[in-house]
Amino acid sequence: MNLAESLDRLFYPQSIAIVGASAAPEKVGSVCLSNLLEAGFKGRVYPVNPGLSEVVGVKAYPTIRAIPDEIDLALIAIPAPLTVDTVEECAVKGVKVAIVISGGFKELGTEGGLHLQAKLRGIANQSGMRIVGPNTVGVANPAANLVASFQSSFGLARAGSVAVVSQSGGMSAYIVHALTIDNSGISKVIGLGNRCNLDFEDLISYLSVDKDTRVIALYIEGLEHPRHLMAAARQAVKSKPIVVLKGGRSELSRQATFSHTGALAGRYEIYRAALHQSGMITVDSVAELVDTVKALTFYPPRVGNRVAVLSVQAGPGIVIADRCREQGLKLAEFSPATGKRLRQLISPMNSVDNPLDISWKFTEFDASREILNAVLADDGVDAVIIASVFYDTHMELIRAAIDVTKSPHKPIVVCLDSPGGLAAAQIDSLETNGIPTYPLPERAVTGVAGLVRYGEIMVNHTSSKTFLPRNVS
Amino acid sequence: MNLAESLDRLFYPQSIAIVGASAAPEKVGSVCLSNLLEAGFKGRVYPVNPGLSEVVGVKAYPTIRAIPDEIDLALIAIPAPLTVDTVEECAVKGVKVAIVISGGFKELGTEGGLHLQAKLRGIANQSGMRIVGPNTVGVANPAANLVASFQSSFGLARAGSVAVVSQSGGMSAYIVHALTIDNSGISKVIGLGNRCNLDFEDLISYLSVDKDTRVIALYIEGLEHPRHLMAAARQAVKSKPIVVLKGGRSELSRQATFSHTGALAGRYEIYRAALHQSGMITVDSVAELVDTVKALTFYPPRVGNRVAVLSVQAGPGIVIADRCREQGLKLAEFSPATGKRLRQLISPMNSVDNPLDISWKFTEFDASREILNAVLADDGVDAVIIASVFYDTHMELIRAAIDVTKSPHKPIVVCLDSPGGLAAAQIDSLETNGIPTYPLPERAVTGVAGLVRYGEIMVNHTSSKTFLPRNVS
Repeated sequence: MNLAESLDRLFYPQSIAIVGASAAPEKVGSVCLSNLLEAGFKGRVYPVNPGLSEVVGVKAYPTIRAIPDEIDLALIAIPAPLTVDTVEECAVKGVKVAIVISGGFKELGTEGGLHLQAKLRGIANQSGMRIVGPNTVGVANPAANLVASFQSSFGLARAGSVAVVSQSGGMSAYIVHALTIDNSGISKVIGLGNRCNLDFEDLISYLSVDKDTRVIALYIEGLEHPRHLMAAARQAVKSKPIVVLKGGRSELSRQATFSHTGALAGRYEIYRAALHQSGMITVDSVAELVDTVKALTFYPPRVGNRVAVLSVQAGPGIVIADRCREQGLKLAEFSPATGKRLRQLISPMNSVDNPLDISWKFTEFDASREILNAVLADDGVDAVIIASVFYDTHMELIRAAIDVTKSPHKPIVVCLDSPGGLAAAQIDSLETNGIPTYPLPERAVTGVAGLVRYGEIMVNHTSSKTFLPRNVS
Repeated sequence: MNLAESLDRLFYPQSIAIVGASAAPEKVGSVCLSNLLEAGFKGRVYPVNPGLSEVVGVKAYPTIRAIPDEIDLALIAIPAPLTVDTVEECAVKGVKVAIVISGGFKELGTEGGLHLQAKLRGIANQSGMRIVGPNTVGVANPAANLVASFQSSFGLARAGSVAVVSQSGGMSAYIVHALTIDNSGISKVIGLGNRCNLDFEDLISYLSVDKDTRVIALYIEGLEHPRHLMAAARQAVKSKPIVVLKGGRSELSRQATFSHTGALAGRYEIYRAALHQSGMITVDSVAELVDTVKALTFYPPRVGNRVAVLSVQAGPGIVIADRCREQGLKLAEFSPATGKRLRQLISPMNSVDNPLDISWKFTEFDASREILNAVLADDGVDAVIIASVFYDTHMELIRAAIDVTKSPHKPIVVCLDSPGGLAAAQIDSLETNGIPTYPLPERAVTGVAGLVRYGEIMVNHTSSKTFLPRNVS
């Protein structure tokens, strides 16, 4: 079975065996079983427990082999030594993918742990089985109602276009939470754990042709085979951006990185150079990852870094201009024709420089639309950031942004948020119509910077343009 | 009337006149009136409009002078030329504080605008009146049910201990929104606008003795009299931290800064050195401001930068360690005694280095508490960051953190969040008990870095220690 077929079984299983589900609801296996049931999984589920005939009302089997059905995916959450026997049994049964939640392998840094992991790997490689983990949080696929993980909150993610591939289960949770809170949906999430025989490069290859995935987000600690990752990425970034957060950047955390998933973290500078060379976008925090990813789910890469800033009050425009400069973006210079047009549209008393303070014109739909059209038509403008503080009335500028984005357009992002979810309807309206929103001015700049960085990567790595804006694809 | 008395009338008015409230609900004055009423303001409200006998059911007066009551605060939202007459009238009436929302003054950069503002200033100075603005968003004081502003969303802020003083109304809104979303309450918010005769130094002096304010947050674009600010800050930081976001940092935004509130932005490096010299903490984004401020509302300054990191899964600990290093914090080295104790408490297979992965021990209350006690008792530890990914059960580590914080303690911050507000009860429980939470690992580090930076400032600026942790004050 090739990699794609195995990973299809992992993310779209028809039948799942859960080894370690028991009568004790707090046990990891039991938590995984209830997460799967609560997510509304439509396939067949088989708890495996030698001492029980059923678990939470679902018929149980004493062993994997006793299940009278083909098993697409085995999820294993039992102590490490027993895990080896169970994986052996999976091999005999013909299971092609297993998730090994259990710890007690290479991450311990002990002879015993290394030995057990080598055994797992040997069995898997010999039988053509892929193992997620060991020492993993598991996987989730919201569109398939799949939560094969003890991380219950994966069930809160909505189906979307971001794939999260994380070496750490904990970081996968923080990343998925942050994406979900900021309205980005998830195509797949997978914790790689100790990466016994399934690694970043395998997921990148698979996700690069996954129709539900538009952006690939990686959390990497250490790599045994960086060249494999680089080769896979170089190919994948021709069609999808890859955004990487590297843990273990500082010397001080080297020891922690070693003991976690068993891979020594190299110096960050070396990694970063290698990641950039193969077309990946690097970020330094989860916040930056989430903001970078969001714009990339909405827009194709952008060649050109000249940003026009429209604000309703001058301050946010100034803050955006600062951050543009700090992130290597330029403030667009409006052409004389644009300047003339803007002077007609905005009070002659106001300046028509960039950043452009449109002031009370945001309360007029036609004026807002014509201002936006004038700016978008300027050949010196590559992208537009709108800072529109939340008001409960007078959102004509928002309506105008939605209106102008109906025709093929340059990327527009909007800074808009409010406590109490009051801006939710406006945010939803913008995002449904293909315009991403950010709660803070600086964060919108991070989004545009991601589009521009991916634009540079596309120029370097390919000449083909296969992207369409989300609202016309 | 001295400054404090004037500002008391501004933030705790018994009577307010609103000039410019009219029958048209979308007019700025009308929006201000309805915001005030919706906030549940308890004092007396007098719309002023020469053509109306009442506005939204409230009796109106043709002029300020016609109001048969003393007026603590006049809010003015009418065109600039008329504003001068109205301020003149306020002076005759004996009004001591006015908020001038109206634009059309110095921010235009025109002779006419400068002239009108000089007139306002002359009238105000001669009569001992303080003017907020002109060209301001207004003020709010949640504890006094006061929203004297067109920014309706100020009404969503909850009463708390952060004072926001902003040159830009738009930035004040983004900052207050972000603080509110992250559970920080507001003591006062004020937009200074063109700073006619009320400037940053005045607010700093007032807020430094305001019993409701624990942290002062400033958004500054430009300053005419930086020495005044520095002198006020040098005094204030002895009792309260001041956190500053400077807009107009980049050369490119100089022009925009000039045209906004009429003050040329200087080179950022010069500002930053001056701000640091006078004991202020500088930040580069609203996100950093919000995270820095939050920890400072919970804890006194911390002398010592050695951080212990406890996590439930290794990855978040590694990410926190990275960010500590990047923000100038050190990872604490546990003493041999602490190491020995931790080895007893955590599985002997696990490493007991810092960051400390406590793994499944987070499901045991007693073990979690003893681990925390061991770490807190170590003389080499100045602060503790706990990364506890959200689960809907098994939050014994959270309970343990609350338990150990009951006795005098070193700062503890917790990284915890979940989509759908699922972690809200746990977050509320932690924060009610004096432990601030952050949604992401890196953001918690920013909070601790703020405590440490303020600790350094206290060492440099004073030897008195007047701080108590929030939960014992």
